[in-house]
Amino acid sequence: MLVSSIDEFALIQWLTDGKQSRDFQQAGGVAAGIGDDAAVVNIQPGFQLVMTCDTMTEKIHFTPMTMRDQDIGYKAMASAISDIAAMGAVPKFALVAVSCPPGTGLPRLEEMYQGLYDCANRWNVVIVGGDTTSSSAGITITVTVIGEVEHGKALLRSAAQPGDVLFATGTLGSSAAGLDYLLQRGLPAELWPADNLRPPADPDRPGIESLIQAHCRPEPRIDAGRLLQQSGVCHALNDVSDGLASEAWEISEASGVGIDLIEDRIPIAEELMSYALANEKDPLDYILFGGEDYQLIGTMQAEHAISMQMKFREAGLVLYIIGYVNAEAEGVRLVQSSGYVVPVDKKGYNHFRKG
Amino acid sequence: MLVSSIDEFALIQWLTDGKQSRDFQQAGGVAAGIGDDAAVVNIQPGFQLVMTCDTMTEKIHFTPMTMRDQDIGYKAMASAISDIAAMGAVPKFALVAVSCPPGTGLPRLEEMYQGLYDCANRWNVVIVGGDTTSSSAGITITVTVIGEVEHGKALLRSAAQPGDVLFATGTLGSSAAGLDYLLQRGLPAELWPADNLRPPADPDRPGIESLIQAHCRPEPRIDAGRLLQQSGVCHALNDVSDGLASEAWEISEASGVGIDLIEDRIPIAEELMSYALANEKDPLDYILFGGEDYQLIGTMQAEHAISMQMKFREAGLVLYIIGYVNAEAEGVRLVQSSGYVVPVDKKGYNHFRKG
Repeated sequence: MLVSSIDEFALIQWLTDGKQSRDFQQAGGVAAGIGDDAAVVNIQPGFQLVMTCDTMTEKIHFTPMTMRDQDIGYKAMASAISDIAAMGAVPKFALVAVSCPPGTGLPRLEEMYQGLYDCANRWNVVIVGGDTTSSSAGITITVTVIGEVEHGKALLRSAAQPGDVLFATGTLGSSAAGLDYLLQRGLPAELWPADNLRPPADPDRPGIESLIQAHCRPEPRIDAGRLLQQSGVCHALNDVSDGLASEAWEISEASGVGIDLIEDRIPIAEELMSYALANEKDPLDYILFGGEDYQLIGTMQAEHAISMQMKFREAGLVLYIIGYVNAEAEGVRLVQSSGYVVPVDKKGYNHFRKG
Repeated sequence: MLVSSIDEFALIQWLTDGKQSRDFQQAGGVAAGIGDDAAVVNIQPGFQLVMTCDTMTEKIHFTPMTMRDQDIGYKAMASAISDIAAMGAVPKFALVAVSCPPGTGLPRLEEMYQGLYDCANRWNVVIVGGDTTSSSAGITITVTVIGEVEHGKALLRSAAQPGDVLFATGTLGSSAAGLDYLLQRGLPAELWPADNLRPPADPDRPGIESLIQAHCRPEPRIDAGRLLQQSGVCHALNDVSDGLASEAWEISEASGVGIDLIEDRIPIAEELMSYALANEKDPLDYILFGGEDYQLIGTMQAEHAISMQMKFREAGLVLYIIGYVNAEAEGVRLVQSSGYVVPVDKKGYNHFRKG
């Protein structure tokens, strides 16, 4: 059954009806959801709106070798929600625009919407509208997420200050290594086992599932973002969509400060280390230039770092201190284990070309 | 120069920088605009958010024969703003997601953004963010618009009541006739004169420019929507994106009432009449099943119709009474000039197939 064989309004109803209960929507602040020209929602007094959108396109952001249809939906929602996390805000509402060729099978679209809803439900985000249109070629998904944050308390990229340390809310580089593996393997996602959301374990690749998971099902760090925002001691915040180097550069440029990364302090996930060793690659390349990890990096006053790490631990989260703001330097540098300090290139993933 | 020859961040800066002044943004309620993970904005206390998104794809919604690049941007913004007008709300903020092949010329994208900004500026909408990505084929534009409306005062499709008349804020069908003409003519938009935003007049087609304008540069009816919303006597409201038939059906179904259109009361623009006569077509076909007019239709208590028409006239707007809610009937019917009453088919433009 193709999407073109069903009426557009019936299609939207088919894909969205009953996916989020009326109670869930009302608790989220929805006055009128899907089904009118626009959605009507409430926002708490004393809060500001935070809004962002993210697009994923076929063959560029996903291929049959790298993601199942459910993953595509999940990741499209996760990456947009991640931008809200990177402001220290709470995601509330989403709009989903999908365009696909008329010859697309209805089950494909159903799977994508399932993934979109799975991620939205997980983070209490109500999908309040969207648009479903045909395209001449290729699937494009644009997810808009609107959130709220206490007035004047959003965490901007431009807020890094001398005296700050640089932190990360988790290990980096796994997503890029997972992508590498999937492309090498070249097994179409439809041949991955259907009964679970991971591809089969590979006896020659211990821990490979966690790298694949990092690429296919990234988790936005809403909890970490809120913990940082509520603490009042966090300055700048950013999510890692384009690699640590690129994100650190964004903070550096927006704040007008230098940032030094300390190689010895940058954590490397065990699975990434194994994978890199087996492939004779430097794990740091994945970490600096890989992207799509959706961890948060940011800066906070150095004297609060230890107590914040303890708060993170209590919440079942981790916080790594991986560098510091260097007001004497410019741009981003890496303090190598050898003691040498080298400039770090900006290049991350550029959507129009490889840097 | 191709979009792929310039860095993604530089590209966004190039397309958006300086297009809306800091003052304009601040007056609109923007605390942080383009340049961070997400935008941060203010909304008035006592207001609800209204949000919608609209997608236009190449070859489906526009081709080189039907629209110039500036028109594409203008119309993408206008159609999304129109959904806010259809709620009786005020549009405030927009997010723009564009994906295009790496081989797209930078001037094409510049023109599209110019059109997007022209429309946004005209309606005091601040473009606060977006996403620019590559696609494997074809340009896709998704515009999200967020507006605000007085708490509990949005005009829904479901609010039509017995005793209401059906109104339209302008003539309908011109956009579809304009599209017909452009497709027949088959002149690539790049060959249309560059010094003005209309194609040359056609001596054989008097008034054809207004039909082309209706298709390429539709105007969202924000002023009409606000006048209706502020009046307190308007019940249901909808914008005409898919033809009068389809939109009247939406009100009918959502409100659980019948709607009778009165053929003699449906205004026909002079230019549409000439075009239809010359092409041996029925202008009513364009009106009922054409779409993309972006006028508003809706219902209000009959006793207020005359005074509302006067208010519209004072504001330099028009309001046509074209039918009424018929609690005795079901669905949408047409009371023909002959006196016969015939059911009206739902079919409008379906984005996956022609109905």
